[in-house]
Amino acid sequence: MKFQDLKIKTKKQVSEETKGLSFLVKANYIERLTSGVYNYLPLGYRVIKKIEKVVKEEMDRIGGQEILMAALHPKSLWEKTGRWESFDALFKVQSKYDQWYALGPTHEEVVTPLAKNFIFSYKDLPFYLYQIQTKFRDEPRPKGGLLRTKEFIMKDLYSFHADEKDLDKYYEKVKKAYFRIFKRCRLKAILVEAPGGTFSPYSHEFQVLTKNGEDEIRYCSKCLIGYNEELKKDIKKCPVCQKELLKEKAAEVGNIFKLKEKYSKALDLKFIDKNNKTRYVMMGCYGIGISRILAVISEVLSDEKGLVFPLELAPFKFVIVPLFTGQKKIDSLIKKKGEEIYEFLLENKKEVLFDDREVSAGEKFFDSDLLGISYRIVISEKNIKKNFLEIKGRQSGKIKLIKINAFKNILTKNDFLF
Amino acid sequence: MKFQDLKIKTKKQVSEETKGLSFLVKANYIERLTSGVYNYLPLGYRVIKKIEKVVKEEMDRIGGQEILMAALHPKSLWEKTGRWESFDALFKVQSKYDQWYALGPTHEEVVTPLAKNFIFSYKDLPFYLYQIQTKFRDEPRPKGGLLRTKEFIMKDLYSFHADEKDLDKYYEKVKKAYFRIFKRCRLKAILVEAPGGTFSPYSHEFQVLTKNGEDEIRYCSKCLIGYNEELKKDIKKCPVCQKELLKEKAAEVGNIFKLKEKYSKALDLKFIDKNNKTRYVMMGCYGIGISRILAVISEVLSDEKGLVFPLELAPFKFVIVPLFTGQKKIDSLIKKKGEEIYEFLLENKKEVLFDDREVSAGEKFFDSDLLGISYRIVISEKNIKKNFLEIKGRQSGKIKLIKINAFKNILTKNDFLF
Repeated sequence: MKFQDLKIKTKKQVSEETKGLSFLVKANYIERLTSGVYNYLPLGYRVIKKIEKVVKEEMDRIGGQEILMAALHPKSLWEKTGRWESFDALFKVQSKYDQWYALGPTHEEVVTPLAKNFIFSYKDLPFYLYQIQTKFRDEPRPKGGLLRTKEFIMKDLYSFHADEKDLDKYYEKVKKAYFRIFKRCRLKAILVEAPGGTFSPYSHEFQVLTKNGEDEIRYCSKCLIGYNEELKKDIKKCPVCQKELLKEKAAEVGNIFKLKEKYSKALDLKFIDKNNKTRYVMMGCYGIGISRILAVISEVLSDEKGLVFPLELAPFKFVIVPLFTGQKKIDSLIKKKGEEIYEFLLENKKEVLFDDREVSAGEKFFDSDLLGISYRIVISEKNIKKNFLEIKGRQSGKIKLIKINAFKNILTKNDFLF
Repeated sequence: MKFQDLKIKTKKQVSEETKGLSFLVKANYIERLTSGVYNYLPLGYRVIKKIEKVVKEEMDRIGGQEILMAALHPKSLWEKTGRWESFDALFKVQSKYDQWYALGPTHEEVVTPLAKNFIFSYKDLPFYLYQIQTKFRDEPRPKGGLLRTKEFIMKDLYSFHADEKDLDKYYEKVKKAYFRIFKRCRLKAILVEAPGGTFSPYSHEFQVLTKNGEDEIRYCSKCLIGYNEELKKDIKKCPVCQKELLKEKAAEVGNIFKLKEKYSKALDLKFIDKNNKTRYVMMGCYGIGISRILAVISEVLSDEKGLVFPLELAPFKFVIVPLFTGQKKIDSLIKKKGEEIYEFLLENKKEVLFDDREVSAGEKFFDSDLLGISYRIVISEKNIKKNFLEIKGRQSGKIKLIKINAFKNILTKNDFLF
């Protein structure tokens, strides 16, 4: 894509709560519509879709089938579980013509009756459904940009089992899938015990250390396990390695719950077991905040210059910056070489931006760092004479000269340079 | 995918308003949560994502950049355009803590201020943004399954121009893109004039003939143009070819509007023109109902046996049905051959279902027709002895015997058989 077609104008001055949020706003990734409500602009949405792709791949890998459930939930379903009154952050909306609805903040009330389409006997179990969807919560104090919002993008997976043993087994499988997801997002996730609600003594949260997080956790820096301070436990040493636990601020990026029979009982989801007896289905639920991952990445991976992404999530992998000299003949050569590299990358289906703006090289460099594009390719007079490209890795900060042929050779096989 | 992992149970008896809706419910594509609100189950959502892909490709082709706007819109924005009161189907929701919101039924109120991030001077124009998103409308009488709902998936594109001439040019470009989209969905779209609201004498709708549609149109069957009867025009002959116009029921699948300066004035979206004068941006907006396309396809492409899709949209391209004989040795050969074909298709990244259910061949045939899978591959004793596959095309209804090697040879190049 040509930079001018992207139309984005990076911002110089913004006053946001946190470093990550400042970069997201400066880089035109997101825009605040009102307190706790954000719009995703083209670059921000590109990254969101890449995060979604990673999450989907890992959900598919553990047998998840993707669906899309409604956001408007009839009040009657939420009354059956008692949450119409007890769920504090529930947005309630009334139709002029018929009923009251809850705006889905989570989907147990919908997925449990939905599963009746699929589950009749033990032969139909286990079974896994997930969706990626916009959720709504009437937060009293939205803050931290995308960290706590009234509207957010979430992946929610629900599992259905014949017995608790099978639920436990899948719960461990989801843990592993979650660690794979956070690793692909280059986030160091810590698995902590957290309050489990009324149906289970504990749930687990995946927390990432950041001083801008809302939670406080106590954790082992070696084993990456711990507990949420909300639990008010008095454990000072790691139960695995005996190392002293540390206390730090963190942001939750995922959580997993054993729902057991809580919702299947309330919403009457049963199956016929091997002995021909009717039983309630065992359930688990597993959330990941998609927009929250973007927020956390922007807090913990950014450096002083701007956003940094793992290669898989960067909005563009390459930006080509031609360094013009003002001399017509030389500039025409530079342009030609830049376009050759651009075409080569496009042909090889690489996401590349050609910075065709009439602004200074300094501004182009500044923006490519701010936007978090993985590799910056500078086309200069000196280097093209020797058939070299000057390439800077956004993450490593390293600058290398690479022969054009060698560059092309690597890129037909791999996206990763250094 | 193995059919048993899909877990779907097709329904035999349903009582729905229309043929298409009956098939969607029987085939476990969708589920009604409450009046006018649907959940998309795994197969239905597969098709929805394929429709989205077609639409995205055509939007990208005409320069659209994808974004995602919020569904919660502050009341203040809707008051600025006067639509807080005048937009009948607006869902209004109040936060316990701060303000009232509209649940976005369309996004002019949000995209117009959003465009201020990008548009400063004439050099920034034209500019195109689109999104695919869940919309909310408080319909008094939801009906026709996915045709008129309180919650639906829509693609909305907004264009920004320096002058009306440029808007007109792009409007024609969008028309062509829309015809390409409907053609890829195998829908015969008729372009009709429709009421344009207060800002433009006309808008255009793309209508598909179906007796279950909500609109009545008068159209030329040769030129595929016409007008919506709502316009109360008294034109009986085609203005192009003079052919007598026909009157029929139809369902709207897309609409395009020239908004001109209506929203840029109300929401103060200006730019500096070539003569250094400040002017309002000219706007257009262009909608396509994604979930409605699924509804219309199910009405107009279905036959008596079930759903039929263009190859690009089918939930699976192939279903493999092994015909077991009850004789162990032969059945083991049949299974082996079926799995060989299955692996071959998977390796070639074809979407294939292996019908591993323990049900009769008749039930497997019945379901593969109902679900609208493009090609059914029967593995029988007779045919594998001769190295043949019996393949039935869902759309053509034709059954052909194809040599296994020839089949593999075609499939490495192409998805289309006959």
